Amino acid sequence: MRVAALAGGVGAGKFLRGLVRVVPPEDLTVIVNTGDDVRIHGLHVSPDLDSVTYWLAGVADRERGWGRAGETFRTTEELRRFGAPDSWFSLGDMDLAVHLFRSELLEQGSSLSAVTAEVARRFEVNVRIIPMTNDPVETRMEVVDEGGQAMDLHFQEYWVKRGARDEVKAIRYVGAESAHPAGGALEAINEADAVLICPSNPVASIGPILAIPGIRDALAEWRNRAAGVSPIVGGAPVRGMADKLLPAVGVEVSAAGAASCYRGLIRGWVIDELDRSLAGVVEQQGFDVVVVPTLMVDDDAAEVVARAVLRVALDGGHR
Amino acid sequence: MRVAALAGGVGAGKFLRGLVRVVPPEDLTVIVNTGDDVRIHGLHVSPDLDSVTYWLAGVADRERGWGRAGETFRTTEELRRFGAPDSWFSLGDMDLAVHLFRSELLEQGSSLSAVTAEVARRFEVNVRIIPMTNDPVETRMEVVDEGGQAMDLHFQEYWVKRGARDEVKAIRYVGAESAHPAGGALEAINEADAVLICPSNPVASIGPILAIPGIRDALAEWRNRAAGVSPIVGGAPVRGMADKLLPAVGVEVSAAGAASCYRGLIRGWVIDELDRSLAGVVEQQGFDVVVVPTLMVDDDAAEVVARAVLRVALDGGHR
Repeated sequence: MRVAALAGGVGAGKFLRGLVRVVPPEDLTVIVNTGDDVRIHGLHVSPDLDSVTYWLAGVADRERGWGRAGETFRTTEELRRFGAPDSWFSLGDMDLAVHLFRSELLEQGSSLSAVTAEVARRFEVNVRIIPMTNDPVETRMEVVDEGGQAMDLHFQEYWVKRGARDEVKAIRYVGAESAHPAGGALEAINEADAVLICPSNPVASIGPILAIPGIRDALAEWRNRAAGVSPIVGGAPVRGMADKLLPAVGVEVSAAGAASCYRGLIRGWVIDELDRSLAGVVEQQGFDVVVVPTLMVDDDAAEVVARAVLRVALDGGHR
Repeated sequence: MRVAALAGGVGAGKFLRGLVRVVPPEDLTVIVNTGDDVRIHGLHVSPDLDSVTYWLAGVADRERGWGRAGETFRTTEELRRFGAPDSWFSLGDMDLAVHLFRSELLEQGSSLSAVTAEVARRFEVNVRIIPMTNDPVETRMEVVDEGGQAMDLHFQEYWVKRGARDEVKAIRYVGAESAHPAGGALEAINEADAVLICPSNPVASIGPILAIPGIRDALAEWRNRAAGVSPIVGGAPVRGMADKLLPAVGVEVSAAGAASCYRGLIRGWVIDELDRSLAGVVEQQGFDVVVVPTLMVDDDAAEVVARAVLRVALDGGHR
């Protein structure tokens, strides 16, 4: 059984650890958001690609969520001491090796796809991890600060540098309309027995992927074998900033609201037991629903979620 | 009293710690070799500039010589694990902060001079440290390997990557003939009360500086107030590879041979007590000679050397 998954960062990483217990890694292709890629100290940083790789490699930090277990921050601490302009973005020392490795290969003319595969190989990850595109796409936030000042920020400036304190007026995926899906992305969707949307932010993580011409259409075409997992549990994101971003695109912060972002693209939607009361609302939107515990505190819990979403993608839902 | 010093890396750094006990830091300008600057993982690494800065800042590792005390190598270890092409060159985690900081500022259009001043300021070094030039100059080694194969190597490839195991046929300072002295370098020499040559490798460290048009002439013009310290003690370099490089330029590996590299450029030469028997030979070359213990095991020892070389630059020699 071949599976394609659309993924953001940490939530996707946790989920994918469960999925590879059910699907052989070599039969799984993960298409990862690169809209929040950012240049830090001149290096190309791909937070979601790295999160997915680290989680699948078993080297992610489960407590912190992002970055690697046992990480240190010696270089970043020095850069902070220097007052380096980009030192608001914490790069771990081990993590930095990936950014240096990637940046140098990119500078030498490799594609992000090729570099991502090289990095995955170093971590002995057999899942095929591909960026949504090799073209530059930047998720930008039109915000208003506390003083009423309008600003146009890179996603990471909004999220990490300014701590998501600004009011979001609009989100743009700059460059997406002229970007091409990375080689293999459309094929993976078209040839998959099941297409899954990981429990990632619909606006910040999955939105940029769907904005790449061709990907949304491919999903729509195969919607009868596609399903997703709600990143919202009990009216709040399990992690991250969905509560700030969903309202900006006119979507309710709930498992039902998140589902509405994928209308016409998937048949099934997995929600948490806490949201059982929303199952009817989600079904009225046209989705098959599965209710399971979705808090992925460990790989066993993630496997339950993976089995549930695969089932609803292949066979339809049940409560 | 204003002093200008020509400097390489570690030997210069140790010496300069003694010199700033005798000369107020703000009256000292150090003109540093950049011929062995190298691009590693896409970053601009300036080994000699950093050594001088770290030593003057008191953060250098006295045992290892290069790099910072208390350094770790987490990023480099990861890059080695990846098999990254440049991972033969060890970059410490704290050290890496300087390379990232420098590379980003250079990319944004700053000169190496400006970046060097910014780095020195971060380390609260009041000595004026300037690169010999802001133009690209590369010390390249024409060598023959064990199998008789001729190769043209960057200095760092010869020295660090291949461990100086090849036979050196010639040394070239590529780009030097069209390079310009960095702003302030000629002025520092012309306006100095004493011009000093640090105990650095005459071929690998001081040679590139003298190859920048204008610097050799300035030195020659003011030779009567210039002096140097021998980096060779008892027929061997205190540190480094002078024993490999001096023969390649037809110079004997001795305190007298090293002096001969500076004929017509300085009046005085400081040699170690171990080389007292060479004093006559050095004098016959036209130098005033001072004999002192030159092994700079600590700052007190370095101060003795600094006082000796200043004295011979200003007043002439004595045994």
